Amino acid sequence: MYTLSANQYGKGEIHLVRIYRDAPRHEIRDLTVTTTLRGDFADAYTTGDQSKVLPTDTQKNTAFAFGKTHGDGAVEDYALALARHFVDSDPYASEATVEVLVDGWDRVVTDGGEHDHTWVRRGPERRVVRVDAAGTGDGQRLDVIGGVTDLVILKSTGSEFHGFHKDAYTTLGETDDRILATSIDAEWRFGADPADWDAAFDAARAALVGAFATWHSLALQQTLFQIGQAVLDAVPELVEVKLTAPNKHHFLYDFSRFTVEPPIPNDNEVFHADDRPYGLIEATVSRS
Amino acid sequence: MYTLSANQYGKGEIHLVRIYRDAPRHEIRDLTVTTTLRGDFADAYTTGDQSKVLPTDTQKNTAFAFGKTHGDGAVEDYALALARHFVDSDPYASEATVEVLVDGWDRVVTDGGEHDHTWVRRGPERRVVRVDAAGTGDGQRLDVIGGVTDLVILKSTGSEFHGFHKDAYTTLGETDDRILATSIDAEWRFGADPADWDAAFDAARAALVGAFATWHSLALQQTLFQIGQAVLDAVPELVEVKLTAPNKHHFLYDFSRFTVEPPIPNDNEVFHADDRPYGLIEATVSRS
Amino acid sequence: MYTLSANQYGKGEIHLVRIYRDAPRHEIRDLTVTTTLRGDFADAYTTGDQSKVLPTDTQKNTAFAFGKTHGDGAVEDYALALARHFVDSDPYASEATVEVLVDGWDRVVTDGGEHDHTWVRRGPERRVVRVDAAGTGDGQRLDVIGGVTDLVILKSTGSEFHGFHKDAYTTLGETDDRILATSIDAEWRFGADPADWDAAFDAARAALVGAFATWHSLALQQTLFQIGQAVLDAVPELVEVKLTAPNKHHFLYDFSRFTVEPPIPNDNEVFHADDRPYGLIEATVSRS
Amino acid sequence: MYTLSANQYGKGEIHLVRIYRDAPRHEIRDLTVTTTLRGDFADAYTTGDQSKVLPTDTQKNTAFAFGKTHGDGAVEDYALALARHFVDSDPYASEATVEVLVDGWDRVVTDGGEHDHTWVRRGPERRVVRVDAAGTGDGQRLDVIGGVTDLVILKSTGSEFHGFHKDAYTTLGETDDRILATSIDAEWRFGADPADWDAAFDAARAALVGAFATWHSLALQQTLFQIGQAVLDAVPELVEVKLTAPNKHHFLYDFSRFTVEPPIPNDNEVFHADDRPYGLIEATVSRS
Repeated sequence: MYTLSANQYGKGEIHLVRIYRDAPRHEIRDLTVTTTLRGDFADAYTTGDQSKVLPTDTQKNTAFAFGKTHGDGAVEDYALALARHFVDSDPYASEATVEVLVDGWDRVVTDGGEHDHTWVRRGPERRVVRVDAAGTGDGQRLDVIGGVTDLVILKSTGSEFHGFHKDAYTTLGETDDRILATSIDAEWRFGADPADWDAAFDAARAALVGAFATWHSLALQQTLFQIGQAVLDAVPELVEVKLTAPNKHHFLYDFSRFTVEPPIPNDNEVFHADDRPYGLIEATVSRS
Repeated sequence: MYTLSANQYGKGEIHLVRIYRDAPRHEIRDLTVTTTLRGDFADAYTTGDQSKVLPTDTQKNTAFAFGKTHGDGAVEDYALALARHFVDSDPYASEATVEVLVDGWDRVVTDGGEHDHTWVRRGPERRVVRVDAAGTGDGQRLDVIGGVTDLVILKSTGSEFHGFHKDAYTTLGETDDRILATSIDAEWRFGADPADWDAAFDAARAALVGAFATWHSLALQQTLFQIGQAVLDAVPELVEVKLTAPNKHHFLYDFSRFTVEPPIPNDNEVFHADDRPYGLIEATVSRS
Repeated sequence: MYTLSANQYGKGEIHLVRIYRDAPRHEIRDLTVTTTLRGDFADAYTTGDQSKVLPTDTQKNTAFAFGKTHGDGAVEDYALALARHFVDSDPYASEATVEVLVDGWDRVVTDGGEHDHTWVRRGPERRVVRVDAAGTGDGQRLDVIGGVTDLVILKSTGSEFHGFHKDAYTTLGETDDRILATSIDAEWRFGADPADWDAAFDAARAALVGAFATWHSLALQQTLFQIGQAVLDAVPELVEVKLTAPNKHHFLYDFSRFTVEPPIPNDNEVFHADDRPYGLIEATVSRS
Repeated sequence: MYTLSANQYGKGEIHLVRIYRDAPRHEIRDLTVTTTLRGDFADAYTTGDQSKVLPTDTQKNTAFAFGKTHGDGAVEDYALALARHFVDSDPYASEATVEVLVDGWDRVVTDGGEHDHTWVRRGPERRVVRVDAAGTGDGQRLDVIGGVTDLVILKSTGSEFHGFHKDAYTTLGETDDRILATSIDAEWRFGADPADWDAAFDAARAALVGAFATWHSLALQQTLFQIGQAVLDAVPELVEVKLTAPNKHHFLYDFSRFTVEPPIPNDNEVFHADDRPYGLIEATVSRS
């Protein structure tokens, strides 16, 4: 009478820090890994039989182990290896997803120059890597998604918003000069592997930031479309870019209500940065 | 060369509090509303022409106005009215989604009994209402989703986990008595309107909580399937229940390592409630 | 040339869940414990000599162990025992603070009545217990602080704000009917031990909530003073109550700007609950 | 019978963004301001008479206005002007505190070099400025505190922890090579005004980071004392540095439990970064 339809299980937010210490100048990699398996797991739900279920604790152990055994390449190589491991070695998992959020650390600079083994955390922006693996052998399919999350970016001019549709509830004024601020979540899907995963990420991120900065915006919608195109232009292996961007409103503060003399001007200089609500714009741009 | 594919826009997290004060005993409704429109909006992205774009600020104004004009029924009635308004009155919006998170408030009890106009916030659990509206007139389609988010629930016994698949990375011990704790996000989809939205919510939530409590669990997967069935049983208008549940691990604390005399027993009494990582189980249960 | 002045160290946010399972009807206690030691620890800072430093890891282990060995009384008894243990048994710790935040869980009710071993988390409010222990033997001093944190409370009428001081920057209108909402952090200090810690907590919390509800407020400041008096009235062992309360603004939404017909009234019914900034009021009320 | 003792009120978390746009190359300042007044405000609490209370809404308005009228110097100059304004112009405020958290923004670099008016948010670290003003005229006292909050810093070697005090609950192993990671909150108090507030901040922060990096640590306690000395060395106008630092534990992951062949080594390379609990170390270092 009732059917189990879509289902999956895994381990969320495994926080793995890998130190590379073969040379005096160490390197650091800070990963938050989520693993997910799909496959022949219905019995675990319907009868409680766990004989086909690889514990999420084991998935966690494996994620840490692969940090050593498969940690020398790019984060994408790690995620690919881990996702492939699950579908290749687990007879019951037909599909696996490995998502990695990469926290940034900046090397400390002291009087002696760049320090060998000390870093300061950089955020809130994080690099995103996700691999979907399905099947085994020749028919195995591997999809790689890259991206960024929480890339908070703001331009203080070069942004307009006017000529919009109005109805009886519309009170918003039109403007030809406003702050445009957002926190971009972007996912870009690779149709083929690039020669260098890190170079591809750097190029995509630079294109995103550059398009936001240099495009004179008539709306956040338009800026997103420009960003999507710029990212696809920058990395030929990409086939699609998905963008989610809240419009983080900065309201010009109205000083005209004060009786202070002389009156205080506010020519787009002092803003209240509001928290909620926010606009929320989403767009996917695809290579035709 | 590049195409705009999926796109939508709206206003996120409009925090609306409605007070009902027609009688001395007031009522309160605390809503966090997100509106989203889809339709003929490609020009806003591709050319920057905003002439078809109803500002997200207007969507916010409308959400507040409807709190008065369409606030007398259930939250579902409010969301239906608001979603219909967008597709009915905006010539460019072919689809609208209105999502509402409902914060709970408990009426204060004083020496004089239940207080007329004071409440204490109850959380973190929130009721979820979402309406997807598409089209106009006879062909209009309205989908209503109900649910809860962040319903944190724990049972101190009646939960086992053993007989699972093992590999070279498996270190987890088997157990026939453990704490089972999770934070349930549930979405249930209505195939028809119930006679009473609030009664349907109460029945679904009670079924969810009751199934978690009374089912002797062989795994969180099995518990979720039981919950899904119980919710569908309780509300005949529902056609599908989607459940997402982290396994919030409670680890028995190992006192045997201490040299204190006499040794301290720990017979499933003292646990470390860990934050991350967590298991993450997802299942959808459908009426056949 | 440089001096180490105030210093302390300890373990923050030990998340301990204790289950009482001697009877079929289990009980749960959910504690987040922070321990802090002060004493003869200067060498650890100035020379790096750790020989007097009891590791924070040991403090954590002890907090868990005492969950079993000293967990049968009130949370205050647990905190007292743990704080005393540190100053009594650690020759280098002259003072110890144990702070406990207690998360609430509501027993689940099913068709069969209250469930024996399942609970739903209640929040965001948490009970606060803090013990400061200093010295040993007859000269030992033990201070007990109780309280609540994040008690979010709102009244929909019975609150005014007018007649305030104005200057050239003042734009706020006066009102004789507004929503009053806050999130109270309260700490009350015991001058003597009550007969029953839990009963004292219940009485203090009830007095707090009752005073907020029933006092017709001319300002949040006035309400806080009333709360402080009510709490001291309710629990004779208390000597002081410290209150911190943000004024969580609820702004009446202005519908007069819309051109919709007929105009939409808003007689203190629909509010925008704003996040930031907020008023921030603090007061300490003492028994003379 | 009851007395109002310590009390204060103000506005919390005013989020002000100031753009400097006199030249094509704009500058941005992102401030979260909290204002607090102390003085002749007892009547507001005890009788509800608000005639001496400057509304927190007015304090907010003033904070925004001063962003324009007193925003050209350092953040310290802004905070000093605002704090002085309250005690100088409000006849009932005898003391005022203005605390400012400064969010960092990095100028975007595009193909055309540094962009004139676009920035990416840098975090989580924030600069702290706090001014306490008391009194008026010749007797006016102004205290300036600088600092940083949430400066997350990690070193992958050069940190030991051994030779500590042990008791029956101690299980921690000793180590001569571990990750040392923390999130530093520092406040430094100026005894005299430096020639350049920004230069003083830069010097203090550089000293803090440099001391953490270059000092071979025998414990976080020792590192904090070194940091305090280094900051006082770097800025002669400072008289005291207060440091709060959680020990964010990174646990070496134990691969020896796996049966995988060949065994996987873990020579301080792969760590689990744990969330809670954490050590919590506090120290104040003063110029003698």
